[in-house]
Amino acid sequence: MKRNSILAALALTIASLAVSSGAQAQQGPKPEQLIKWRQSAYQVIAWNNGRIKANVEGTYNKEEVIKAANTIAALANSGLGALFAPGTETGKGWHDTTVKPELFKPGSKVGEYASAFSKEANELAQVALLGDQAKTKEQFGKLGKTCKACHDDFKNKE
Amino acid sequence: MKRNSILAALALTIASLAVSSGAQAQQGPKPEQLIKWRQSAYQVIAWNNGRIKANVEGTYNKEEVIKAANTIAALANSGLGALFAPGTETGKGWHDTTVKPELFKPGSKVGEYASAFSKEANELAQVALLGDQAKTKEQFGKLGKTCKACHDDFKNKE
Repeated sequence: MKRNSILAALALTIASLAVSSGAQAQQGPKPEQLIKWRQSAYQVIAWNNGRIKANVEGTYNKEEVIKAANTIAALANSGLGALFAPGTETGKGWHDTTVKPELFKPGSKVGEYASAFSKEANELAQVALLGDQAKTKEQFGKLGKTCKACHDDFKNKE
Repeated sequence: MKRNSILAALALTIASLAVSSGAQAQQGPKPEQLIKWRQSAYQVIAWNNGRIKANVEGTYNKEEVIKAANTIAALANSGLGALFAPGTETGKGWHDTTVKPELFKPGSKVGEYASAFSKEANELAQVALLGDQAKTKEQFGKLGKTCKACHDDFKNKE
């Protein structure tokens, strides 16, 4: 009886460990949440992209461009890759994801594209400090190319 | 007759100017777009907030906290107020706005709250550079209070 009690207690402990480790694995954000966050991040980039576009094509406001460029740079450096975790290849955040499955394949160029995006975004944040419309426009064009390269390969049309 | 032709031409010119100036006034983003962007911005803040929370309550990763704090600070400094333009008091972005009409009333404390949010977010980005979990936790608490103050007054429960 004593032996059986010990075994029963052991079994309970093991079961409880299994349950808590299962719960732990589920503690991270769900795929739909990650997709929602990444869709939000790109919307924020689009907002700030639009602000810079309006400034380089029209009346230039140095302070507004600095704010917008800093926001894009912070997002480019934020580690957006974490929002493309395994399990987020398909699914719905605010809307069905537009990511192509190719992004998740080993050997995809996504890391390379992400680095180029960060590099040009950081450079734009620096150039913005000069308050020179023409220079900002030139660097903004370089940034846009890194967006396009990645979208061409890895983003379905909405 | 000649005089009438000139008057007719003038009238046409004036009418065309009125139309084009009307079109120009409508060129800015629509209210639904502004609401979508602000909902996205707060989602990005929530993502980064969650990352910092996980770091101050669990295993601390200095680099991750710096990235997250920088993103929140950039957004706090980005000029989010522009996304609460007149016309966005009600409406649907990703979902119905949860903003309370009180935010838009003259004399509302929203500017004060926004300044406090920027101040504490910038301070958090500085503190994050130290890589000290306890200090980050303390400053993160101060930031959280500025979020709560504004939400209590101006955000409906979802």
